[in-house]
Amino acid sequence: MRLSHNFTRTLKDVPADEVSRNAQLLIRAGYVYKVMAGVYAYTPLGIKVLENIKQVVREEMNAIGSQEIIMSSLQRKETWEVTDRWDDKKVDVWFKSALQDGTEVGFGWSHEEAILEMMRQYIKSYKDLPVSVYQIQTKLRNELRAKSGIMRGREFIMKDMYSLHATEADCDAYYERAIAAYKRVYERLGIGEDTFITFASGGAFTTFSHEFQTICEAGEDTLFVNESHTVAVNEEVLDDATRELGIDKESLVPVVSAESGNIFKFGTEKAEKMKLYFTGEDGEQHPVYLASYGIGITRAMGVIVEKFADDKGIVWPTSVAPALVYLVQIGQQQSLRHANSLYDELMSQGIEVMYDDRDERPGAKFADSELMGIPYRVTVSDRLISDEKYEFTSRKTGETELLTRDELLARLR
Amino acid sequence: MRLSHNFTRTLKDVPADEVSRNAQLLIRAGYVYKVMAGVYAYTPLGIKVLENIKQVVREEMNAIGSQEIIMSSLQRKETWEVTDRWDDKKVDVWFKSALQDGTEVGFGWSHEEAILEMMRQYIKSYKDLPVSVYQIQTKLRNELRAKSGIMRGREFIMKDMYSLHATEADCDAYYERAIAAYKRVYERLGIGEDTFITFASGGAFTTFSHEFQTICEAGEDTLFVNESHTVAVNEEVLDDATRELGIDKESLVPVVSAESGNIFKFGTEKAEKMKLYFTGEDGEQHPVYLASYGIGITRAMGVIVEKFADDKGIVWPTSVAPALVYLVQIGQQQSLRHANSLYDELMSQGIEVMYDDRDERPGAKFADSELMGIPYRVTVSDRLISDEKYEFTSRKTGETELLTRDELLARLR
Repeated sequence: MRLSHNFTRTLKDVPADEVSRNAQLLIRAGYVYKVMAGVYAYTPLGIKVLENIKQVVREEMNAIGSQEIIMSSLQRKETWEVTDRWDDKKVDVWFKSALQDGTEVGFGWSHEEAILEMMRQYIKSYKDLPVSVYQIQTKLRNELRAKSGIMRGREFIMKDMYSLHATEADCDAYYERAIAAYKRVYERLGIGEDTFITFASGGAFTTFSHEFQTICEAGEDTLFVNESHTVAVNEEVLDDATRELGIDKESLVPVVSAESGNIFKFGTEKAEKMKLYFTGEDGEQHPVYLASYGIGITRAMGVIVEKFADDKGIVWPTSVAPALVYLVQIGQQQSLRHANSLYDELMSQGIEVMYDDRDERPGAKFADSELMGIPYRVTVSDRLISDEKYEFTSRKTGETELLTRDELLARLR
Repeated sequence: MRLSHNFTRTLKDVPADEVSRNAQLLIRAGYVYKVMAGVYAYTPLGIKVLENIKQVVREEMNAIGSQEIIMSSLQRKETWEVTDRWDDKKVDVWFKSALQDGTEVGFGWSHEEAILEMMRQYIKSYKDLPVSVYQIQTKLRNELRAKSGIMRGREFIMKDMYSLHATEADCDAYYERAIAAYKRVYERLGIGEDTFITFASGGAFTTFSHEFQTICEAGEDTLFVNESHTVAVNEEVLDDATRELGIDKESLVPVVSAESGNIFKFGTEKAEKMKLYFTGEDGEQHPVYLASYGIGITRAMGVIVEKFADDKGIVWPTSVAPALVYLVQIGQQQSLRHANSLYDELMSQGIEVMYDDRDERPGAKFADSELMGIPYRVTVSDRLISDEKYEFTSRKTGETELLTRDELLARLR
């Protein structure tokens, strides 16, 4: 993309009420626009990052045989009364409204009940199981406060997956496959090394659920990990988990972390409540075993910003960056011709380039490339051209090298 | 995709309250699930059709230099009070709710005001113009009645585009480019021949707006077209438009049609209300010229179903079909081997195949292929294999041919 065509501008100032670092950086760099507290719009640059994250998640969910669907935002009261989750005293994040005839409706803050209700139409027999479905959907949650930028908003994008099984063993086996898929997601997003599967509080149906927690100073959680990083436990279940696992609490060290995924087993209790039964091989009616698996797409984007940003701006991992290369052209005709030809060549090879062809000072272009966090900056100037070199700078390390065109192309491929 | 892996089933019955033909067919064939009146979820098959339509629209909007963004569903009251469109007496389709501190919020039924408010942040000078942005977004509209299936729902997907210009001439020129892009969209969706750009009522800012209307018996509108199909006028502006165009009203014939797109010029009036000004070359402040361009994505899917369906079910144009081929395997080992190998070969060539590998009677498979509307059915049976032939049936014409493998591959490429 040519920056001269991009309508967003990098900004010096952010809205006065914006206190979160991820949103401040994303607004300044032109990835998001703040609509109101906890509600953000995404610009062309922001969409590219979101789509990169979605695509990683989509590929890994497809790889374990899950099928993509899309539910509705509008929710029927009756769907959620069955499990007593319509009541605002039980679920305090509902946005609700009413149809013109007075019928109450809610806006999806979760889709567990809605998807199970739908599945009643399709699951009749043990032959219809197992099934795994997921959606990438906008959730609306009426959070009392919204001060974490895109890490915890009132409107956000989430991938939620649900697996339905005839037996507990089948559910357990799929749950392990999903854990492996989640690990691949975090690896590919560049946060694999610092993301742990942890024991978390389980809610009504199991002793523990599992969270994926990413070490990150902006996180809201405290995690206790052992020295080899093989055990991680959320603070709220520290006593129970260490007792159950037979681990010395003193061997675990606290770190600040952000939740970046959450998975649950429901057993059959949810299906019993929702009357989701199937006819078994024995001809009898049995409740379905259920597990659910969530990853916040916008949240992951926020965690990545918080985790890697430095004092100059955002630092995107290559897998999620809106472009691999930020191309800076400095000087007159000759360097312009070289920059144009390099841009065309890289784009034709499928390498995404953000070409700063604007009429700006070199210093402003360098500062924008750093603020926007593009992994590699390539500078083309008259002086460099006369030496037949390109300046190649890593955003992450700040290191600069002078490369020939062949060396440059080899590095980017 | 193998149908044995698909969780939806074709159904004999539809919800008793579902009166629209498009929704009845889409529910029976397993493309959508009805959540409540006017609100539908989309299954893996439904998502494929939606994504095909979105992709056509996206490519054509990108081709005229528009940039994709995504706004929020949650809307601030203040944004819409400026143009007096918050008031329920003025706009009667708002869904509204409130934050926990009592602040009123709405859910986006349109994003005109929201996008213009955002653009105030980025448009400062004539150098920042023109800009064209679009989004593919879920709209929520509190329709009094919702009886048209996915053609007019309470929750639906729309592509809305907005172009901003420094001069009227530039706006007019882009408007013509957008009309050409829209025509390409309808061509590619298979409804180009029967879709007309019409004169429609213009609202507050111009004498006429333009609609794209598709001849379709399920439509809510009446269109008056001339014999050569070069002039089309909406019923509500028939008198004004024929007078202005100097056309004899009697030369126009009425046809039933469905709106499949709507484009407007706003002049500068909207920008003046929204205080969207730019500094011109003359150093003075000028209001922005604005036009908006909408296509309902889910509506287009509904119109296509209504337009082409026959008494056996849906008939998808190839560009939007979830698969090009419905592969039916009948019989024992030998035909199964042949069907598997054909499936692998077609998929490896990028030809999407719905492989009916279920343990079902041939008649049930044929009926499902017709109900689901896949353009070409290919049947592999032991008898056919012994003659080294494949049965190739067009969903649209019903014609069946016996083809060799090479002939079949040539036909599908």
